[in-house]
Amino acid sequence: MDGTEKIGIGVVGYGMIGRLHTMNYRQLRFLYPGALPALVLRAVCTSREETARAAQEEAGFCTAVTETEPLVADTELDVVDVSLPNNLHRPVVEAALAAGKHVYCEKPLAGTIEDARAIKNALDRAPSVRFGMVFQNRFFPAVMKAKEIIDEGRVGRIYTYRAEYLHTGYQSPERPLSWRLRKEEGGSGALADLGSHAIDLVRYLLGEFETVQGHLETFVTERPIAHGASAKGAVTVDDVAWFRATMAGGAVGTVEASRFATGTVDNLRFWVYGEKGALHFDLMDPNYLEWFDESLAGGSYGGERGWRRIQTVQYYPDAKVPPARSPIGWNRAHTENQYQFLKAIAEERDPSPGIVDGLRAQLVIDAVERSAVQNGRVVAVMPE
Amino acid sequence: MDGTEKIGIGVVGYGMIGRLHTMNYRQLRFLYPGALPALVLRAVCTSREETARAAQEEAGFCTAVTETEPLVADTELDVVDVSLPNNLHRPVVEAALAAGKHVYCEKPLAGTIEDARAIKNALDRAPSVRFGMVFQNRFFPAVMKAKEIIDEGRVGRIYTYRAEYLHTGYQSPERPLSWRLRKEEGGSGALADLGSHAIDLVRYLLGEFETVQGHLETFVTERPIAHGASAKGAVTVDDVAWFRATMAGGAVGTVEASRFATGTVDNLRFWVYGEKGALHFDLMDPNYLEWFDESLAGGSYGGERGWRRIQTVQYYPDAKVPPARSPIGWNRAHTENQYQFLKAIAEERDPSPGIVDGLRAQLVIDAVERSAVQNGRVVAVMPE
Amino acid sequence: MDGTEKIGIGVVGYGMIGRLHTMNYRQLRFLYPGALPALVLRAVCTSREETARAAQEEAGFCTAVTETEPLVADTELDVVDVSLPNNLHRPVVEAALAAGKHVYCEKPLAGTIEDARAIKNALDRAPSVRFGMVFQNRFFPAVMKAKEIIDEGRVGRIYTYRAEYLHTGYQSPERPLSWRLRKEEGGSGALADLGSHAIDLVRYLLGEFETVQGHLETFVTERPIAHGASAKGAVTVDDVAWFRATMAGGAVGTVEASRFATGTVDNLRFWVYGEKGALHFDLMDPNYLEWFDESLAGGSYGGERGWRRIQTVQYYPDAKVPPARSPIGWNRAHTENQYQFLKAIAEERDPSPGIVDGLRAQLVIDAVERSAVQNGRVVAVMPE
Amino acid sequence: MDGTEKIGIGVVGYGMIGRLHTMNYRQLRFLYPGALPALVLRAVCTSREETARAAQEEAGFCTAVTETEPLVADTELDVVDVSLPNNLHRPVVEAALAAGKHVYCEKPLAGTIEDARAIKNALDRAPSVRFGMVFQNRFFPAVMKAKEIIDEGRVGRIYTYRAEYLHTGYQSPERPLSWRLRKEEGGSGALADLGSHAIDLVRYLLGEFETVQGHLETFVTERPIAHGASAKGAVTVDDVAWFRATMAGGAVGTVEASRFATGTVDNLRFWVYGEKGALHFDLMDPNYLEWFDESLAGGSYGGERGWRRIQTVQYYPDAKVPPARSPIGWNRAHTENQYQFLKAIAEERDPSPGIVDGLRAQLVIDAVERSAVQNGRVVAVMPE
Repeated sequence: MDGTEKIGIGVVGYGMIGRLHTMNYRQLRFLYPGALPALVLRAVCTSREETARAAQEEAGFCTAVTETEPLVADTELDVVDVSLPNNLHRPVVEAALAAGKHVYCEKPLAGTIEDARAIKNALDRAPSVRFGMVFQNRFFPAVMKAKEIIDEGRVGRIYTYRAEYLHTGYQSPERPLSWRLRKEEGGSGALADLGSHAIDLVRYLLGEFETVQGHLETFVTERPIAHGASAKGAVTVDDVAWFRATMAGGAVGTVEASRFATGTVDNLRFWVYGEKGALHFDLMDPNYLEWFDESLAGGSYGGERGWRRIQTVQYYPDAKVPPARSPIGWNRAHTENQYQFLKAIAEERDPSPGIVDGLRAQLVIDAVERSAVQNGRVVAVMPE
Repeated sequence: MDGTEKIGIGVVGYGMIGRLHTMNYRQLRFLYPGALPALVLRAVCTSREETARAAQEEAGFCTAVTETEPLVADTELDVVDVSLPNNLHRPVVEAALAAGKHVYCEKPLAGTIEDARAIKNALDRAPSVRFGMVFQNRFFPAVMKAKEIIDEGRVGRIYTYRAEYLHTGYQSPERPLSWRLRKEEGGSGALADLGSHAIDLVRYLLGEFETVQGHLETFVTERPIAHGASAKGAVTVDDVAWFRATMAGGAVGTVEASRFATGTVDNLRFWVYGEKGALHFDLMDPNYLEWFDESLAGGSYGGERGWRRIQTVQYYPDAKVPPARSPIGWNRAHTENQYQFLKAIAEERDPSPGIVDGLRAQLVIDAVERSAVQNGRVVAVMPE
Repeated sequence: MDGTEKIGIGVVGYGMIGRLHTMNYRQLRFLYPGALPALVLRAVCTSREETARAAQEEAGFCTAVTETEPLVADTELDVVDVSLPNNLHRPVVEAALAAGKHVYCEKPLAGTIEDARAIKNALDRAPSVRFGMVFQNRFFPAVMKAKEIIDEGRVGRIYTYRAEYLHTGYQSPERPLSWRLRKEEGGSGALADLGSHAIDLVRYLLGEFETVQGHLETFVTERPIAHGASAKGAVTVDDVAWFRATMAGGAVGTVEASRFATGTVDNLRFWVYGEKGALHFDLMDPNYLEWFDESLAGGSYGGERGWRRIQTVQYYPDAKVPPARSPIGWNRAHTENQYQFLKAIAEERDPSPGIVDGLRAQLVIDAVERSAVQNGRVVAVMPE
Repeated sequence: MDGTEKIGIGVVGYGMIGRLHTMNYRQLRFLYPGALPALVLRAVCTSREETARAAQEEAGFCTAVTETEPLVADTELDVVDVSLPNNLHRPVVEAALAAGKHVYCEKPLAGTIEDARAIKNALDRAPSVRFGMVFQNRFFPAVMKAKEIIDEGRVGRIYTYRAEYLHTGYQSPERPLSWRLRKEEGGSGALADLGSHAIDLVRYLLGEFETVQGHLETFVTERPIAHGASAKGAVTVDDVAWFRATMAGGAVGTVEASRFATGTVDNLRFWVYGEKGALHFDLMDPNYLEWFDESLAGGSYGGERGWRRIQTVQYYPDAKVPPARSPIGWNRAHTENQYQFLKAIAEERDPSPGIVDGLRAQLVIDAVERSAVQNGRVVAVMPE
């Protein structure tokens, strides 16, 4: 970089996650000084002019629009950030690709497997465009360290694993319907919303899924259509999803995604059990990776095996603030995901995670849903 | 009791578990002073005279025998303690019942569902005989407290649960075959050996199983026939078992029993997620029950919900030593199980857990095995 | 607010902490939308023109200066943020006060008790000026919840407490001298640097210190003057500080501040033991307050007493993003401290923590140092 | 051993601890088969004939007495187990030594430093007699592993440490007086009762104490003379004791012993911070030693440093049951202490811990008490 490069950014959707991305774009230069071209917040797009204007004011976007077309027509805009509900991803991504803009897309890739494949096909026809996924949980140092330990062969052959993404908050039958509880709007329930993160982490760490055997359950099947309403409507997505999977590499494991796990907060957890060692992580304890080294068996008093809570804290190679040895929270992984995407854009290479990661997670979701409707029989994950 | 009552005990099998039971019979009067009749160690039975003699010497049994017959013929013997491998339970129990002796039987009830049913039938024909099972994990104060909280309705409707019994130690392919790895000798693998405990705890806390969907996996399919031997033999039992179950009460949960869970020690763990609260226990942290009370939601800073580590330590209502407020270990639950069995014998009532608990756990094991050989389809647990 | 209000900010010092404050000023509007006037980054001041220019560029300050005078002369500047080494606080604060500017001052208040008193005196002569301290650890929801529980009388009479701030990194005798290890530059060692945070938290939660008994220790008394240098210089501050204190309210406790606590990261921890309950917090586990309610004694299996890990996560009453139920890190408390300061400025009231908090922490530091040089005798904390 | 050896044991005092020792003597042969001579429970001595008879009946002692003389006159009695209140240790030990009996003495060695020295002097005049102390907390595998790691030099130079023994239960001012709250009967309060264990562990791990600076506090200074009584009497011992100590090896640390630490159960904890590593143990988590290896610094994502929870569980070299990989509780360390004492007797060598350990702990207690009455000035620990 010679200091004159810029990346123009357009944010489509300004709910909680769009606002968060925007806030983060504004702070990247402090966290990673000198590492990126200047970021210019070119445009924000929301469905209503009022909210678009408020977003512009809040964040200092150059323009505020209510349609995708003017946004992707901006010649100084390089990246379209898609922070929309799942079933709205496809048209916006297609418009961005048609205009030659890079895309940064929230998970899951799309609301349906058809949309996901269509996005992939569109991208294949737009070779100069780069596509980044938001799977931010890859970007905790603890998770990156887990990947490193596995890749170095220190876990050895992996026998089994367990991944869970446990939330709470939908237990009360009085909680009314929302788009997240209707298939036609939200696309899917806990499986896509939470399970997509668990699936991506398993893929990131252990490789590809081969077959799955799934079950979906809806505990509260109808809910008030609004707070306090007596009229009720049907819940058409899963409250909880379970599946057992066999991996291409031979490991067997189980995944659970739940919106009914009383007592949990944002507990994305995994355990990997291998020949030479084992790993554990929990997003609610994000500063540590737990690592068990089987080679420490033997010796007095049973040897020295035990789970080591590796203090990964916020050791991001390129980051300057906050100080490395201070605890991090949920948003820190989001900023690193954004940073890595933009760095790839600046360096003209494909970001990771990218389109294949988005599509493959969707294919696993699809397989679990196909198994569940067939009373849990074993089904193969479809190829790309 | 007028102080003259005695209970005569015969121990059949004097491996690790038989020796442990014997040690515990000798210490019950200290832990629970005045609560039981005098316990008399009448006889020990092992397959070889030499080991039987050594056991007699070590523990002070009145006699040592190598066959069941003379043992059950002892008129001053009231209880037969069955601490044998699973597939040897049936003949010894049948002999005991025929002689009118009470039985204290290690888990699982038997090596096969046929043997289990046969034991139940024999017991039905011996109405004066009482039958106690060893499912000692019910007897941690933390587990009893969990039961109490559920029974009081404080968890409310239970949505999901998770139970795991995770061990390690079989990962090395160099570890040779043993009876525990051959179906014809051990009856089953991780499912019966470890899973039976998890199944019993789930039944104890949540009621009956209705359907299951299971999978069994053997990661190391052949092993040396002895340490260092080049000849190999087939492993014919599961290394790891998984199943998903639907309970009669509507809860859905998963169970995993593993001998390949690197980093675990003796980790029998459960989580129960309900409408009003949640519970967690881990046998490696046996002094605490974790309880989450959903009603503490609301109020400043998000309210005061959180997992409370209830200090159950060793609060056994009838116990005198060790002091209640000191940590306990694995064997303490065994002693309480033996105490509760003998107290029921003294009070002429059926012990709990009893034959039904033994049989029903076996029926769940059977259902999981039937599902597994049918590629994981959903199967119903058979009635008693 | 009518939407036209602005607060002009000048940052003096742009090391790690000045940069962090600046990044945070830029993100406050996202975290707390609509809650504050517009913040304008008027000026940055560093000792060298080059670093000042770089800071201006990075953060978008209107001007960059190398002296305090032009900064405080800016009529549109309302707040001077003092992010300098301790012994440079006094002259900058005095200049700000003389110009009628509000001050946001990093801890500790000053390098010496004389400087601290001088600042307080200058402030007393500037009644229209508001003074805020950075004691950010007050601003974890877990800590605010602890304060609430104590203030509601739920802990009852407090008997004892323990506060620790444990760091590591100075153990290697090869680590060279720096200003933090020389009294003439850094003012003090672990006691002021880390201990000031622990002292403030104890005051915040338990009230005023009355007497202390202290000890300071320097384990590595001389160090290379630069990396790899053979020449050595004296370390003139404490590596570790301990003190026992009696509080005005009758509680007795101990405080430890250490730069030599191998295995720690940023472990600011406290335990409060009272008549009716107990509290625990650890900055490395910032999403939870641990609370023990003594009233849960009694009942079956020893009752239901236990430490409850209250999930405070990021429940800030005025905050919008990140979502409340996601884990937070170290910087989140900094942003809340800045927010609360600016809100007080906007509402024309004194911020909390303020000058009295800065001064009283310094008086405790002073008392510990006086005790330590008198071989640990009990000394009274001086009045303001 | 040729199988004919026997050790005759007399237990003096049959309160909770005397009963526990007795129960343990009866189970040692199961835990450590073949490792010890036969143990014969020769005699029990309590102050009242009724309780002595009951103890005899319960445990099968050959005789029951109410005076020390007949007990020590038994020619087949080899060991006198002193499980009496502290101020009664001296006369019984002296009688035992005069009769040439070995002694197994509960902690602390005596009620006063004068008594402790007298016991030591009597022992010096009885060279054929062996003296064992009960400091059972040395006998957790986790603690033994800590000792091993330190002795191997893996912690390096030790800078600081912290030891705590925290109990609860005396907070209620309604709890009436007892001998444990009166100096003339109990000798001392939390310092001797709990602190003696902490002191012994520090000595065991880190070597000798050199100077101390102590403070004792009594929070509830008078109490009802009996449950519900309106008459009150003075509490004449400490509720809580604190001291800072400098060790002969250069380490500086603090010790706290408290009966007022709400929320604790039996929390004997230590932390050791050294040049190359750190250690942590908590008796309420007795199956693990936490070990931090500083040499794992460096490398990607901040290296791999972290606290490892070494699974020591119950790896006792000579033990057979319970299985090594199952969790242990408080009493397990008692049995190992008894085993090690008896093994030393059988092998005709001095047990460890022995008289020097008892006396030196008492000298530290004495120094803390002397410092406390001099307003906390630094005092030297007296030589033996």
